[in-house]
Amino acid sequence: MRVALVGATGAVGTEMLRILEQRDFPSTELIPVASPRSAGRKLPFKGSTIEVVALEADVFDGIDLALFDVPDSVSLEWAPVAVERGAVVVDNSAAWRMNDRVPLVVPEVNPDDVRDRPLNIIASPNCTTLAMVVPLAALHRVFGLNRLILASYQAASGSGVVGIDELWDQTEIAAKEQDKVREGLARDVLEAGETFRHPIALNVIPQCGSVKEDGFTSEELKLCFETRKIMGLPDLRATATCVRVPVVVGHGVSVHAEFDSPTSVAEARRILADAPGVELVDDPDNAVYPTPLLAAGEDACYVGRIRQDPFDPNALEMFCVADNLRKGAALNTVQVAELLT
Amino acid sequence: MRVALVGATGAVGTEMLRILEQRDFPSTELIPVASPRSAGRKLPFKGSTIEVVALEADVFDGIDLALFDVPDSVSLEWAPVAVERGAVVVDNSAAWRMNDRVPLVVPEVNPDDVRDRPLNIIASPNCTTLAMVVPLAALHRVFGLNRLILASYQAASGSGVVGIDELWDQTEIAAKEQDKVREGLARDVLEAGETFRHPIALNVIPQCGSVKEDGFTSEELKLCFETRKIMGLPDLRATATCVRVPVVVGHGVSVHAEFDSPTSVAEARRILADAPGVELVDDPDNAVYPTPLLAAGEDACYVGRIRQDPFDPNALEMFCVADNLRKGAALNTVQVAELLT
Repeated sequence: MRVALVGATGAVGTEMLRILEQRDFPSTELIPVASPRSAGRKLPFKGSTIEVVALEADVFDGIDLALFDVPDSVSLEWAPVAVERGAVVVDNSAAWRMNDRVPLVVPEVNPDDVRDRPLNIIASPNCTTLAMVVPLAALHRVFGLNRLILASYQAASGSGVVGIDELWDQTEIAAKEQDKVREGLARDVLEAGETFRHPIALNVIPQCGSVKEDGFTSEELKLCFETRKIMGLPDLRATATCVRVPVVVGHGVSVHAEFDSPTSVAEARRILADAPGVELVDDPDNAVYPTPLLAAGEDACYVGRIRQDPFDPNALEMFCVADNLRKGAALNTVQVAELLT
Repeated sequence: MRVALVGATGAVGTEMLRILEQRDFPSTELIPVASPRSAGRKLPFKGSTIEVVALEADVFDGIDLALFDVPDSVSLEWAPVAVERGAVVVDNSAAWRMNDRVPLVVPEVNPDDVRDRPLNIIASPNCTTLAMVVPLAALHRVFGLNRLILASYQAASGSGVVGIDELWDQTEIAAKEQDKVREGLARDVLEAGETFRHPIALNVIPQCGSVKEDGFTSEELKLCFETRKIMGLPDLRATATCVRVPVVVGHGVSVHAEFDSPTSVAEARRILADAPGVELVDDPDNAVYPTPLLAAGEDACYVGRIRQDPFDPNALEMFCVADNLRKGAALNTVQVAELLT
């Protein structure tokens, strides 16, 4: 199986290369593809190095599988080119996710959907969706999910390397002006960078992505629409507020989930303890619950702080966290590709 | 009016002193009170200095008004002593808030409640409750609130000066180990301090306060119980997940609010634009919405990102932020005291 990795030098692409190696993905050849300015760069892979080639149509000749992590516009243009040259594309952008002829797949939730791919493109979900959809699907199978009210805590790396840079530069500036910052005057010290629209260090920003219809942001809409599609629940009532937080890696989601039948915390814990891809960490008396620092670098979707809504026996509250670069992006894309091998 | 300020050297006490001066509170004398180890410290006030005295019963002789910001146990012991010596107490701890004979007051919401104070103690709410209850009360008057589903973003200073120290120390350590942190390995670099149970720099921690009944934390229960009491809505169905974030000052709350009657974003904005103590900042296309950096040092409760739940015409989503040391604590306490002058 000859594999192309398009967007190999980005934050997620770098992680994908690492995961392909860690999981010993059965590729006979791996071609890292990126923009012309990265062409010629050598990347470490399986004890040797591979050379980045510039994105052009001929790259895809003889390629069986193309993994894409590029901006939506690049994917819209180039995924069909890869397919035309004979590849199956697994794409991590938002470009194809809501296309009716493109399956949106999480291997622990809807693996069989990869078979029905009329465009030969399969999409991998948004990183925030992935932080919660695996545990939610496990609970849905037993209780029947019908409503979600969500609030997210999204890491800077969700906006790529530039997001991490911005958080870091501002953190250094804040460190130099510690006295002012400690007085609560970080506003006088920090300026918004180009990635986020406000300072991200020592701040939270209730905007992820761009503002779309009815005041919801692109991230909020993705979280709701993608969850419906992956879970096969077109009537799921879902609403979300997405917030950027000064964390490097690890997206969190505070989940209020309403089900068709009565739930219990004990039963939810039993279900989640056995669910593939889920790590139950729920012993708050001993400070055991999901945090971004716990999830960073790990494969699982972490879930904890499970409580019953005191006013609705059919509803549960919980806190979910996953590494947005791994399960939230690179790992899920590779896991989808593994379904094709 | 002779005033004692008990807990004058803490994070909130310091802010209270500043606010008493800024608002030219009509005190004829102000006596700063603290633990014996702070006694003798000189604090700046109205262009001169005042000397901290140690907390003992005689301090309250001749005092008309005692403002308390101390731990619950200290308040439980000493507020009755101050009352016995003739003072009215306005207390900012959690010790008295849910006592049936103690009014819990937010001047913009339930100012008249100060009159019914059989113990001569009046309580000021939790800092997170204050970040949202002022705008919610304004909406309630028109639409009739019946349900809240909340997720908080709480600053380190909510745990006092020690919380700020812990965030800051860890931020400095992370800065020194930038390469590891940028790789997402902050976990290897940062250790939990004594205040929070996990590292708070570059992390979010889904625990504020201690774990109480049914897995809810003390902060989550305060947020729900206090909101019911202040708004006079004993049947309000409220549930919350409280999360600590690496911010110095400014508590945020993502609010899902369900009302008795149909809402609209336009009508909600009109109501909030005119509500006392509320600052409507809601133009997301231009990145105008509440953030902790915007609210720090300010008096208002900021509200924005107002949207209608796509599946419930009676429900609104919004994001609220207030300075947890000012409106969330010191300012509200002083405003309550002003009702007594």
